[in-house]
Amino acid sequence: MKQNRVEAVLKNMESLNLSQILITDPLAIFYLTGRMIKPFERFYALYLNQNGNHKIFINQLETVPEDLGVEKVRFTDSDSYMDLVIKTTDHTEPLGIDKNMPARFLLPLIDQKAASGFVNASLALDQARAVKDIQEQELMRKASHLNDMAMAEITHFFKEGVTETDLAEQLKKIYRDLGADGLSFEPLFAFGSNAASGHHWPDDTRLKPGDCILVDIGCTWEGYCSDMTRTFFYKNVTQHQQEVYHTVLKANEEAEKAVTPGIPLSSLDQIARGIITDKGYGSAFTHRLGHFIGLEDHEFGDVSSASADRAVPGNIFSIEPGVYLENDMGVRVEDLVLVTDHGHEILNHFSKELTVID
Amino acid sequence: MKQNRVEAVLKNMESLNLSQILITDPLAIFYLTGRMIKPFERFYALYLNQNGNHKIFINQLETVPEDLGVEKVRFTDSDSYMDLVIKTTDHTEPLGIDKNMPARFLLPLIDQKAASGFVNASLALDQARAVKDIQEQELMRKASHLNDMAMAEITHFFKEGVTETDLAEQLKKIYRDLGADGLSFEPLFAFGSNAASGHHWPDDTRLKPGDCILVDIGCTWEGYCSDMTRTFFYKNVTQHQQEVYHTVLKANEEAEKAVTPGIPLSSLDQIARGIITDKGYGSAFTHRLGHFIGLEDHEFGDVSSASADRAVPGNIFSIEPGVYLENDMGVRVEDLVLVTDHGHEILNHFSKELTVID
Repeated sequence: MKQNRVEAVLKNMESLNLSQILITDPLAIFYLTGRMIKPFERFYALYLNQNGNHKIFINQLETVPEDLGVEKVRFTDSDSYMDLVIKTTDHTEPLGIDKNMPARFLLPLIDQKAASGFVNASLALDQARAVKDIQEQELMRKASHLNDMAMAEITHFFKEGVTETDLAEQLKKIYRDLGADGLSFEPLFAFGSNAASGHHWPDDTRLKPGDCILVDIGCTWEGYCSDMTRTFFYKNVTQHQQEVYHTVLKANEEAEKAVTPGIPLSSLDQIARGIITDKGYGSAFTHRLGHFIGLEDHEFGDVSSASADRAVPGNIFSIEPGVYLENDMGVRVEDLVLVTDHGHEILNHFSKELTVID
Repeated sequence: MKQNRVEAVLKNMESLNLSQILITDPLAIFYLTGRMIKPFERFYALYLNQNGNHKIFINQLETVPEDLGVEKVRFTDSDSYMDLVIKTTDHTEPLGIDKNMPARFLLPLIDQKAASGFVNASLALDQARAVKDIQEQELMRKASHLNDMAMAEITHFFKEGVTETDLAEQLKKIYRDLGADGLSFEPLFAFGSNAASGHHWPDDTRLKPGDCILVDIGCTWEGYCSDMTRTFFYKNVTQHQQEVYHTVLKANEEAEKAVTPGIPLSSLDQIARGIITDKGYGSAFTHRLGHFIGLEDHEFGDVSSASADRAVPGNIFSIEPGVYLENDMGVRVEDLVLVTDHGHEILNHFSKELTVID
């Protein structure tokens, strides 16, 4: 068990007036134990109680290390594992559960009154996960470093006639060769007007001179996600394309510069949106400025006009303004940014200068 | 909407004494509507009522066809979409829900008494999905045909020194070139003693003479899964390897021959297990004989000694006996089999003869 993370969750549970929580989300359990088990349809859960009576429920078929640091409750496919859970919970207190617990586990707990009430307590987990500890920061740095290297590599494959799908496949090979352990999400390559659509996925469109090339990619390192976008131009670039690019770049840079502990996340969105709006492209910036990221590409926490939160040291989120002009082009520039004690650290180092690939 | 499938689900709901059901599993909704939407964290649900008052709840951000054949309830991220659901459900009747509905959707429904009770009603969906209609049978046939072709192609890459990972990557390229739309699961290639482990995944092990090559692979076609295993030998094969192979092959063939409407699924397992046990390898056949398959690689329904079901026309399941000898070798032979009106149809046609690759 990662004791600091468990303590952070228990502290957050106090604010929710909860003495106990049952977690079935494998990623949340990985976050707290440091061990990844993918249970597929099998029951797998971590129970935490303020009194220290923590337990982990694991099927006998799973191999688990001895030194998990929490009492193991093992069972087989034919055991009534829900009875084991019901024997463990305090029936006189409400039970926190994670937002993704499937109905097939939750309903029996409710039917058999395993607790005095059932509460979505994901906030206790999400708020802890939104503040990355030193070890997580290092893994996020490494994932983004691999992503920087992959971005540099893939530009060598920008040749007339190459398809978006070709590049997506090539990138996967690059990630493997770099030793990444997986993808944060399916890589996005969009040429020309394809880059204007929020719903585009790589297809057989071929690269031609004059196209913008929007590249939004991410790989994982020990489960932690990177996520970066760059937009290039192929062979030549018009005045119009340059203007859009520099507008988006400025929005990205000014918002990043402003990241510091205590700043409202909504004001970061405001800074970027203001710059883009001033240039007349406000309505073409169709999404929020950024999202939190960690074990999942999109985690709890958002950088938008609707956010009521302020940046705290350990937060890692994307800053990704974009301008999307239908039937024309799309530009997005995205880095991951870590909030530090006195400012910020940009996790991506791949150049953001306007680049025309020849 | 696929009317026949909706009617099958409504009929199954009757046996569960349910007049209404709320489905959030995107695959189950795809099964009933023929349209795939991946909502990620957004709310997306299909409501069915015996009185015909069906509704689909879809975020405004999703593009949906006009001709969905069911009333659409649209909402935005800032709407209280749960209120829309609560307005729709009959509060005096129990509500069936699917087994995977996440707690964040289920708990508000319970808290606000959207129904007189909440029941895991996945059986109504699962039992319908276990009987493939003509259209689904055709898609499953096509997926398995692509899988047969891919198996033939990949054998050309069995060369001394090739790694399991190399083959897995090559296979993915083959699937793409064949036009498959995805993988049923990550392809498994296991050489020699690696094939004995149930937990092995392709690694950098290199192929050498005398190895068995266990290949368990599947691709999808319009969402429907294929799944086939063949075991080859490289350069030479010992008497012992031949004996194990022929034992497993016989178990596969005899179980397949017995597939016909009405046969208990447990007796198929018994036939295969009997043949393997007679040869002294009973304890090395460590898993059930097969699983149902369709939109998911593993669906509700199993072919094991514990199954209480009988085969009905339209069932499609795997027949996959295996023998796993630690530090030595593993052999598995797997086809997908469709139960027809008077017998069965094997969906895979790739040869099962003992093959030594030279």
